[in-house]
Amino acid sequence: MKIDVHYTIPEADPTVFAEATAVVIDVVRATTTMVEALAHGARSILPTAGTEEAVKLATSLGRDDTLLCGERKGLKVEGFDLGNSPSEFTPDVVEGKRLVMSTTNGTRAFGLAQEAARVVACAFTNLTAVAGALEGSDRIVVLCAGRQDHFSIDDAVCAGHLLEALVGDGSGHELNDGARAARALARVIRPGGSFLRGTTAGQALEAIGLEDDLEICAEMDRHDIVPELGDQGLTVEGG
Amino acid sequence: MKIDVHYTIPEADPTVFAEATAVVIDVVRATTTMVEALAHGARSILPTAGTEEAVKLATSLGRDDTLLCGERKGLKVEGFDLGNSPSEFTPDVVEGKRLVMSTTNGTRAFGLAQEAARVVACAFTNLTAVAGALEGSDRIVVLCAGRQDHFSIDDAVCAGHLLEALVGDGSGHELNDGARAARALARVIRPGGSFLRGTTAGQALEAIGLEDDLEICAEMDRHDIVPELGDQGLTVEGG
Repeated sequence: MKIDVHYTIPEADPTVFAEATAVVIDVVRATTTMVEALAHGARSILPTAGTEEAVKLATSLGRDDTLLCGERKGLKVEGFDLGNSPSEFTPDVVEGKRLVMSTTNGTRAFGLAQEAARVVACAFTNLTAVAGALEGSDRIVVLCAGRQDHFSIDDAVCAGHLLEALVGDGSGHELNDGARAARALARVIRPGGSFLRGTTAGQALEAIGLEDDLEICAEMDRHDIVPELGDQGLTVEGG
Repeated sequence: MKIDVHYTIPEADPTVFAEATAVVIDVVRATTTMVEALAHGARSILPTAGTEEAVKLATSLGRDDTLLCGERKGLKVEGFDLGNSPSEFTPDVVEGKRLVMSTTNGTRAFGLAQEAARVVACAFTNLTAVAGALEGSDRIVVLCAGRQDHFSIDDAVCAGHLLEALVGDGSGHELNDGARAARALARVIRPGGSFLRGTTAGQALEAIGLEDDLEICAEMDRHDIVPELGDQGLTVEGG
């Protein structure tokens, strides 16, 4: 298995995704929120880069069964139905709904990764399920959404634990520098709330009063689903 | 002490260097080669981004006591006096000479870092000396040159061991995500030839027959000097 990990969006040239399975990670909070929404019955999630694009798409789909979701600077975009806090995406709110979502980092990453043969969303909350879904892939590219094109340790540690679940210590597999570093990080950094609170992303959430979001973001294997990108956006099998 | 580590040149906005001490790391091979050259009596090193710029600068300085050095795709630039292999920079070649140097990643990093109050060059070969020179700094920005704007694990591990020498486990200091990850990497990855041979940079050198360069790159504290950027380029105190 050949596994590359890229820590920021600019580091991943679109050509790297050819014939690969792409794994997008944005622990705080986009992929955690996506997992939460789909686990709670959302029909699909359409990741869009810009907020204007999101509004247009939601309008064209019809607002009856479409929720407009996302953040800028961590806070819900004005006029949107939901922000980017996983706790907002409860079954009574999202069940049966189509979600159009735009976030600062995460949804941009899906725009780039869509060049891949297959694209899945990963967070700590569905890590083991994703590892299971990747078995048998020859070529995996993990794209950490990062934080405004900067290295984000929460995504890196999540990538490392995913690799640990997938290939153990990595021997016999071909890992790029990013993947080797992620594996090493996973050996010494345990995921959890106290880890996330110390990250730049965690501190930024605390600064805007959303630190409670980190509890869900930190919960390993809270759900057993693998959001996968298709014509209808991100969906889960049988979802 | 506030310490940031950036893993690629695009991640470091020039403004981050204001009032900081910048540490540039390009283990394979620019900063290793610079340390070697200055330890062996070179008078100064002028890092330049482009090869044409390097030729012009060397010509204007006068070619009698100026050596033109650098690589593209790892190999010596045509018409240059020296490439970027540390072993080329022996006392009989470089003593008393001024060096104009252009490499793919490392010298670009110095161009960016020159916004800092103070700029030093670090490699495994002078790591403890650099740690000593940084004591008492309030604000340190470590810029890993990376590899064509991609994360490079050799630079990251060097940054981690530098931080270990400087702040131990980091408690009581303010570290960004990159610095925290570097510290974690240093806990599990020991520097040395076998580590460097497994990196992307090491494999690229092997592919062009220059793997012997890694021996010097891997040698911890081979020299006790701290190249520092000033009006005359990089020099060492008393050098």
